[in-house]
Amino acid sequence: MMLGATSKLSISRSMDEWEQYFAENPAPRGYDISCAQLEAFCQVHVNRNPIALVTSGGTTVPFERNTVRFVDNFSAGTRGAASTEYFLSHGYAVIFLHRDKSVTPFLRHLDPRFLLDALQEVPGGLLQLSSIHSAQVHPIWQDYQRVKSESRILWLTFTTLSDYLWLLRATTQCLQQRAPKALLYLAAAVSDFYIPQDKMAEHKIQSASGPLTVTLHLVPKMLSPLVSVWGPELFVVSFKLETDEKKLIEKATESLRKYKHDLVIGNLLQTRREEVTFVTEKESSLLRLMEHQKAEKTEIEKLIVEEVVSRHKNFIKY
Amino acid sequence: MMLGATSKLSISRSMDEWEQYFAENPAPRGYDISCAQLEAFCQVHVNRNPIALVTSGGTTVPFERNTVRFVDNFSAGTRGAASTEYFLSHGYAVIFLHRDKSVTPFLRHLDPRFLLDALQEVPGGLLQLSSIHSAQVHPIWQDYQRVKSESRILWLTFTTLSDYLWLLRATTQCLQQRAPKALLYLAAAVSDFYIPQDKMAEHKIQSASGPLTVTLHLVPKMLSPLVSVWGPELFVVSFKLETDEKKLIEKATESLRKYKHDLVIGNLLQTRREEVTFVTEKESSLLRLMEHQKAEKTEIEKLIVEEVVSRHKNFIKY
Repeated sequence: MMLGATSKLSISRSMDEWEQYFAENPAPRGYDISCAQLEAFCQVHVNRNPIALVTSGGTTVPFERNTVRFVDNFSAGTRGAASTEYFLSHGYAVIFLHRDKSVTPFLRHLDPRFLLDALQEVPGGLLQLSSIHSAQVHPIWQDYQRVKSESRILWLTFTTLSDYLWLLRATTQCLQQRAPKALLYLAAAVSDFYIPQDKMAEHKIQSASGPLTVTLHLVPKMLSPLVSVWGPELFVVSFKLETDEKKLIEKATESLRKYKHDLVIGNLLQTRREEVTFVTEKESSLLRLMEHQKAEKTEIEKLIVEEVVSRHKNFIKY
Repeated sequence: MMLGATSKLSISRSMDEWEQYFAENPAPRGYDISCAQLEAFCQVHVNRNPIALVTSGGTTVPFERNTVRFVDNFSAGTRGAASTEYFLSHGYAVIFLHRDKSVTPFLRHLDPRFLLDALQEVPGGLLQLSSIHSAQVHPIWQDYQRVKSESRILWLTFTTLSDYLWLLRATTQCLQQRAPKALLYLAAAVSDFYIPQDKMAEHKIQSASGPLTVTLHLVPKMLSPLVSVWGPELFVVSFKLETDEKKLIEKATESLRKYKHDLVIGNLLQTRREEVTFVTEKESSLLRLMEHQKAEKTEIEKLIVEEVVSRHKNFIKY
């Protein structure tokens, strides 16, 4: 990547902000274990499979140090979980960095109470699924067991914005050593705002004193160091969610121009299950489920991942 | 309940606030179905079992009408889910009003991936748990199936503060007809603050314009109409969570003096799994797990529910 003097200055400023952020917000519990797992996972797959980092679910931003309240970003994690299954079906190894308790691959097809409902006692005290239920669960169970036996998925969780950013940096730095065969697919809903440690209340904020005014500060833009410093040779796909159609393409293009990564997938909250827009430096194209695909209950993530995988193949070639 | 003129005035003011709240915040989707389920559930159990409403998990407060961000209250829902199991074991029928995707009774003992991990294929393509796994799951499965076959649990979910308040009112009004054999056990973490509809942004708030200042308004105190109007003859137990030990008893007593309900269970975020304080108009008493109970992994909810059930029995007698 060739950079002008202005860009270099802007990256250096952004890096200072980041060093400060990581200095102020301590690493999540179990961080060293996660790093060791990442390293081992990448080692196993380096000469075998392409690797995708899929981020999924929303990050939280605490109001108080002893946290009772927090700001959250709307995301059940469906897009990330579904996309993970499709990356796996394309032969990728996947680091699934997801919000704790959000939707997960494979399990998302099973209602939590379904299995407990469906189990029956058979002679010998064993619990078994009936033939109808076995038939329903079997394809999911089989895919899950295969991926598991090939160690092709690494489950990492976050809750707060700070957990997420620590793990994102570690993963990106680890994958950079596997470039260009690794990609980042940033589907998590990451907060733009946070409350700095020194502005946070120590204890639960009391309601007796009337209305509460909260000032949320801007999070330094994470895509900047990610694309230019931590993972400069990776294929980077980000998502842009808006609710106002008029703003979508403009915001996606702006993001791309600013961070110079490979692809922004723009989507509207209201129609995100049916259409998305692929925006690159050169063009933008709409991807929309056809009527027959809707009728067949094709998930749009299947089409998104097909397209991303195809573009990643081209990226690897050059 | 005998009320003075000041109390009557305060209740009437509070009711006006509530009428306005419900006028401004529409009923949740599926509300009519939930009401019909409540009515049917109460009908079945009216002459059979005491009924407990257990509320569980945190409520959300949206920032935008097309919601991308929201304020949430910290609560996995463990206390409500565990307490539900213990009320069931005491013969109660339970309305389990919980945050969607929060911890649930029975299932909380099974890691979501555990069952998919533990299933094995046996001849005929059926999926079965091994004898070790069957033995682990069997007691939970058996309790769950028993409660289900006796229709002793009704699962109702909420996400936003407004969903919660609509369903809480409906349930309380339904249970009032079964007083004094019904109790409310309000373990949900309910927001004290919200953003009124007319102050809410239509679209996703943009981050480009710098730091964001949000003003959160006070939610009218729900315990007031609940105790005095919707369910005046019910046994009402509320929880008070604080992080500052010095404030706990004072806040619990204040709540009791103000709303005149039966019991406040005070707990600190840091020690809530080990000790709680029962506060009534007359006295306060500490309930703490003994060392041998901790060693045996007794849950404090077992002790809390034993005590609440005993007090409810006395309440029914008088």
